[in-house]
Amino acid sequence: MADESVAPQDSLTPTRRVDVIRVAGGTVTHTTDVAAAEEPLDVRLHGKSFAVIMRTPGDDKALAAGFLQAERIIRSFDDVGAIEHCKHPDQRTAHHVVDVYLVGGAASRVPAMLEQRRQVIANSSCGVCGRSTIDELLVELAPLRVDPREPVVPLDVIRALPDRLRARQSTFEETGGLHAAAICSAGGEILAVAEDVGRHNAVDKVIGRLMMTGSSGRILIVSGRVAFEIVQKAWIAGIPIVAAISAPTSLAIDLAHAAGVTLVGFLRPGGLNIYAGAARLSTE
Amino acid sequence: MADESVAPQDSLTPTRRVDVIRVAGGTVTHTTDVAAAEEPLDVRLHGKSFAVIMRTPGDDKALAAGFLQAERIIRSFDDVGAIEHCKHPDQRTAHHVVDVYLVGGAASRVPAMLEQRRQVIANSSCGVCGRSTIDELLVELAPLRVDPREPVVPLDVIRALPDRLRARQSTFEETGGLHAAAICSAGGEILAVAEDVGRHNAVDKVIGRLMMTGSSGRILIVSGRVAFEIVQKAWIAGIPIVAAISAPTSLAIDLAHAAGVTLVGFLRPGGLNIYAGAARLSTE
Repeated sequence: MADESVAPQDSLTPTRRVDVIRVAGGTVTHTTDVAAAEEPLDVRLHGKSFAVIMRTPGDDKALAAGFLQAERIIRSFDDVGAIEHCKHPDQRTAHHVVDVYLVGGAASRVPAMLEQRRQVIANSSCGVCGRSTIDELLVELAPLRVDPREPVVPLDVIRALPDRLRARQSTFEETGGLHAAAICSAGGEILAVAEDVGRHNAVDKVIGRLMMTGSSGRILIVSGRVAFEIVQKAWIAGIPIVAAISAPTSLAIDLAHAAGVTLVGFLRPGGLNIYAGAARLSTE
Repeated sequence: MADESVAPQDSLTPTRRVDVIRVAGGTVTHTTDVAAAEEPLDVRLHGKSFAVIMRTPGDDKALAAGFLQAERIIRSFDDVGAIEHCKHPDQRTAHHVVDVYLVGGAASRVPAMLEQRRQVIANSSCGVCGRSTIDELLVELAPLRVDPREPVVPLDVIRALPDRLRARQSTFEETGGLHAAAICSAGGEILAVAEDVGRHNAVDKVIGRLMMTGSSGRILIVSGRVAFEIVQKAWIAGIPIVAAISAPTSLAIDLAHAAGVTLVGFLRPGGLNIYAGAARLSTE
């Protein structure tokens, strides 16, 4: 099975149409599906980057205002003099920048707050977007290649993973409140499993555990959804296949294509979707 | 209905037993339930705080190792000279600190990395824990008081919220990949609703939207689970009631008690759980 490239990015809508290989029962269909859009938003204070938030486009000014209140930068909207999308002519990236100008006492605290935050990604262009975020990573990290010597994973192995994961999720049963992640061999054997209130933590725990023992695995499975960062963690750890019980975001799919990571979503009893890297999987 | 205080904190296990008021059908039961434990972990590099991660206790060294790899601080476990829990005699907080010492080239980059990160909370004590995190917030923020003049919200209003939220969740239906949040009046009218790939973003969006229009609401409802930060955002925004379709974490419950926030979880057709602030609700 060959990879399909994703549809052109339309970052102003909350969804994106993506190409997908749908496997249901014994049927394999090349089709399209709708994924939740994920794009970075650069929140700027007085023209300088304060924070980059991965979000679904839309309601960006409200997101910036609510975020700044939660961060205790503003107390009410009276502290805000202006809040608007960047007016740079490059609208591909400008839509992912919200400029905020504060007034009164809040304004006078801005220089100190920016100084404290100066580790935030320094963006050379007007703004960030998913593509530029991926390009930045590609400067330092090589995509994972499909090695002809590596084992092709039968889809039946992938299909069996949710039951194996659930059998090891002891705490979720009790609390209903935890995310789970596991790393498996190409044959589907669970090598490490972890549960955590934070989706990313569960992934960091299983990757960290294998790293500490000097071993590695082929498949990362997660109990919920897959956003950009989960695919990024798999890529950095050299795990070529990511499988999720639930939906991937648009940027997770884009990154999987760019990073050479195989991405499977909606892994349910009735079937599964392959979003990228189908060459590592076999329907035989 | 009076509040019940939470059980003593046992931060070394992945769950915590909590007091809960269970409402199912017409029956109200004071009982206990098990919540997923959430506690901050302070990851230290060469004795200095590098990051504070909200996590479920357990597998902390693996979490720290995986996190440092994802952050590109280490490339493999060969870069790690030692990784261990803090040995400070105050074990209440020391269990929430992992000390990491790097070797070779990774070690020589530590001072620059810490300098870039110096905005991270400066902890005065040996370590952080949920209680100290809450105490820090209480220094600057007053708990929300139950005002006798404020409307008591009938549980039937709370019970009707999930259907109202779902009716407004247009994108989730399409993608299965978005979290939703809404702010409602005491009568259950939806004043603002938002969807986002990020749970926190959806909450920031609805709080920001109401802030921008100068209005406010009484109830924050979220489509999934409730961790510490969601309760914190409601507190800061002055929204006294938080209701969630799914489970709260232990620290969300602790913070709700400390902040005077009413917290409802597992809001399902068959019933709901009240974890804190029951005085704002009425079963009449």
